[in-house]
Amino acid sequence: MQKTLEELALLTGGRVSGDASAVITGVASIEDAGQGDITFLADKRLSGFLASTKASAVITGAEAAGGVNQLIVKNPLLAFSAILDVFRPAELPQPGISPKAEIHPGAILGSGVSIQAFAVVEAGAKVGDRVALFPGVYVGKNAGIGDDSVLYPGVAVREECRIGKRVIIHANTVVGSDGFGYVREGAKYIKVPQRGIVRIEDDVEIGACVTVDRAALGETIIGRGTKIDNLVQVAHNVRIGSDTIIVAQAGIAGSTSVGSHVQIGGQVGVVGHIKIGDKVLVGAKSGVVHDVPDVQVLSGIPAIPHAEWLRAQSVYARLPELKKRIQELEEKIEALEKKASAG
Amino acid sequence: MQKTLEELALLTGGRVSGDASAVITGVASIEDAGQGDITFLADKRLSGFLASTKASAVITGAEAAGGVNQLIVKNPLLAFSAILDVFRPAELPQPGISPKAEIHPGAILGSGVSIQAFAVVEAGAKVGDRVALFPGVYVGKNAGIGDDSVLYPGVAVREECRIGKRVIIHANTVVGSDGFGYVREGAKYIKVPQRGIVRIEDDVEIGACVTVDRAALGETIIGRGTKIDNLVQVAHNVRIGSDTIIVAQAGIAGSTSVGSHVQIGGQVGVVGHIKIGDKVLVGAKSGVVHDVPDVQVLSGIPAIPHAEWLRAQSVYARLPELKKRIQELEEKIEALEKKASAG
Amino acid sequence: MQKTLEELALLTGGRVSGDASAVITGVASIEDAGQGDITFLADKRLSGFLASTKASAVITGAEAAGGVNQLIVKNPLLAFSAILDVFRPAELPQPGISPKAEIHPGAILGSGVSIQAFAVVEAGAKVGDRVALFPGVYVGKNAGIGDDSVLYPGVAVREECRIGKRVIIHANTVVGSDGFGYVREGAKYIKVPQRGIVRIEDDVEIGACVTVDRAALGETIIGRGTKIDNLVQVAHNVRIGSDTIIVAQAGIAGSTSVGSHVQIGGQVGVVGHIKIGDKVLVGAKSGVVHDVPDVQVLSGIPAIPHAEWLRAQSVYARLPELKKRIQELEEKIEALEKKASAG
Repeated sequence: MQKTLEELALLTGGRVSGDASAVITGVASIEDAGQGDITFLADKRLSGFLASTKASAVITGAEAAGGVNQLIVKNPLLAFSAILDVFRPAELPQPGISPKAEIHPGAILGSGVSIQAFAVVEAGAKVGDRVALFPGVYVGKNAGIGDDSVLYPGVAVREECRIGKRVIIHANTVVGSDGFGYVREGAKYIKVPQRGIVRIEDDVEIGACVTVDRAALGETIIGRGTKIDNLVQVAHNVRIGSDTIIVAQAGIAGSTSVGSHVQIGGQVGVVGHIKIGDKVLVGAKSGVVHDVPDVQVLSGIPAIPHAEWLRAQSVYARLPELKKRIQELEEKIEALEKKASAG
Repeated sequence: MQKTLEELALLTGGRVSGDASAVITGVASIEDAGQGDITFLADKRLSGFLASTKASAVITGAEAAGGVNQLIVKNPLLAFSAILDVFRPAELPQPGISPKAEIHPGAILGSGVSIQAFAVVEAGAKVGDRVALFPGVYVGKNAGIGDDSVLYPGVAVREECRIGKRVIIHANTVVGSDGFGYVREGAKYIKVPQRGIVRIEDDVEIGACVTVDRAALGETIIGRGTKIDNLVQVAHNVRIGSDTIIVAQAGIAGSTSVGSHVQIGGQVGVVGHIKIGDKVLVGAKSGVVHDVPDVQVLSGIPAIPHAEWLRAQSVYARLPELKKRIQELEEKIEALEKKASAG
Repeated sequence: MQKTLEELALLTGGRVSGDASAVITGVASIEDAGQGDITFLADKRLSGFLASTKASAVITGAEAAGGVNQLIVKNPLLAFSAILDVFRPAELPQPGISPKAEIHPGAILGSGVSIQAFAVVEAGAKVGDRVALFPGVYVGKNAGIGDDSVLYPGVAVREECRIGKRVIIHANTVVGSDGFGYVREGAKYIKVPQRGIVRIEDDVEIGACVTVDRAALGETIIGRGTKIDNLVQVAHNVRIGSDTIIVAQAGIAGSTSVGSHVQIGGQVGVVGHIKIGDKVLVGAKSGVVHDVPDVQVLSGIPAIPHAEWLRAQSVYARLPELKKRIQELEEKIEALEKKASAG
């Protein structure tokens, strides 16, 4: 595979600064790029590499100093993604049904599916066209997997759950495990039946070892286009809007709703039964304990507006100094009071 | 399936306010309930629905305003659970041993087991009566699974570990992985053999993608009736009492003991080699670093008594204001001191 | 199996205090040890057991009071590990390839491998000598597993990833899932192709339900001898040095580099695109947000030098008292000011 820089400019709607006829044969990171590679300035810290890179071209957002050929585009990462897909296209699983898969005769399979060894599709389950089920995937009774979705090894989708189209679920993630619901009777806990489902809408991507619990009644919902990182917990009856980002190891407790275009940082915790609005940003490791209106930025445990948190946090590290200043004030006051009562 | 409200009152030991002959044909959440449904006020925030619900009856703890038929019981959630089990009973796996399971001839299987495709039962393992092993479950050498337990897809129970009766383990959870133990020799870490086991007592439920490490020597123990949510870490030689609740993404470090009737919130961390008493409550995201006597409520990192934490936390957000007040005091004192020395 | 205490002293380079001819037949914890057992004082809290233990010998680092036979060694835990391996040696899986495994004819298998039921080895994958793949392990296309490595049930190693020699990976861990990378185009997120790999060097151990994402380009690297506990997240393009310890539920965000001989506590979060030096210690639950030079000890969210954190933290719990003292100062000042202006 080779392309001229001009051809890549056409592909990405960019323009070339330098030699438009330069031949590009591969893609590499700016540290590793050599002759023939196009690269991308992923991190401003790496701009020192611009002068020294051996790459044949660099994708940038604005013309930069340095003699290297540049492909200047509006959105460099988007252009990089498109070019990477040209030079190193995703290798899709071959269609076909492994004789070592276990498919219930009552399951309904679309066309062009790839169902690999040791995958299980239970009675009444519906697997859409061109779906890939990697080894060891489990699709429970009456569950549904939409067209063009990919479930990596070991993913479990329990009975009745619904997965949309073009959904990607990474290895060993669990969709539809029972919600964590008990009722106390004396000293013991009695399990509350969890009879709802999980519904995952189109174009969602879910990382590895994520857990999404089924609703007690009704649905746990992950909205269209939302992206969830690894090891995230989504409890029963949670509802997440569309195009929301949830970073690794965050957890959303039961019955909470999260809006659209929200970004929840890594290791954040959100308590149950609250409502987070749209376009909210929650800083990593925060703990959200109250409803949050739209378009807020929060940090801290418990989470407060980010600007307030920054101010409080800047004082926090200086607490010992403040304490000392209070002691000094007390001593001075005492001296003044003595003086005053003596005067 | 249909029942009169009176029949449901008999079943749950409750009484009817309204039409006891009302026919109930299903169960739904208060938002979704329609004609024929019985519903339940799960969340006080939803009490607004009482007036407008189309449900044929609502389960409540005390007679509420509104024209809807009510089933009044002592414990509404318990009654709801019982009624849900009537209308939508759990679908148990069919007994039978899949020809696609791998069962060692030296394994011992009880009666009425359901061992599904691609499950593995190793030599010397003992699987009790009516146990369900879903696809891809692994039961290691000499491990034991008590009667009526259910292991969902992908659960791994390593060699020698003991699971009690009526235990539920959700998908992709790991029981009996090696504890995290090393000894330093120069700059390198040498693995400390992990030769103990995990013992899980009766009536425990463990969520999805949970990890419970085997003891170095002896036993890691999860006591009778304890309930563990998703993505929780239980390290080697931890001992957890009975009827304890551990919420998602919490972690208990090695050799710590946790009492009975404890509640550990989500994302809590507990250090190793400490002892947490009975009936302790630990707030979400806290970090417990010392022994805790019985009947304490803790919050914070490090965890302190909850009442103290609330007081400290209420000041925390006002730190910048306090700092400003200290500056003002310093200026006033300086002025007074000047005046005093001038006077 | 039985050994005299003298033989164990020879094995571990220690010396005996007491009866060197005492016969040892087993190993047990100090609480559980009986006649014939050798034990080990794992925790200073247990030193009370020294007088009362029924063990035939105790491994110690220095001669201790009490009549029990002692094996005195430089590194008691190391000696204990060696002795435990004598009395209860690890049971290695039997070599052999299960007819129920799925091995692509284009895979390359070393000698003495143990490939168990329902394991999958894809085309071009290379499995080294004496490797054990437990049931349900997935080794993707062109992936490589070095000699003597052990992958427990349900581990997934995605295509092209490289695992070194003597690596241990516990059950249901995922190596090589896609990194969490998207580029925004209008309101939607477009997936950035993740075409790099994961490289895990020799002698690494990784716990259960860990996620290690493949690089976008290039490699995510886990260095020689590093040990990773359960439920840890390692994001794309992270580089971890050698002999580093990462405790359970910690997370390292994308493109961050972590040095060698580092210790990262449980539930720690490290932001992306930073550099942590060698020999850094990060306290449990901390959040690291900036570059860290070598040989630092950090705590807190955000993490600050541990000594500063301790000082700030000691004041934190007394914030309500400080606030009260400021109020008192204000009242006194006001009184003095009145007096002064009256005077």
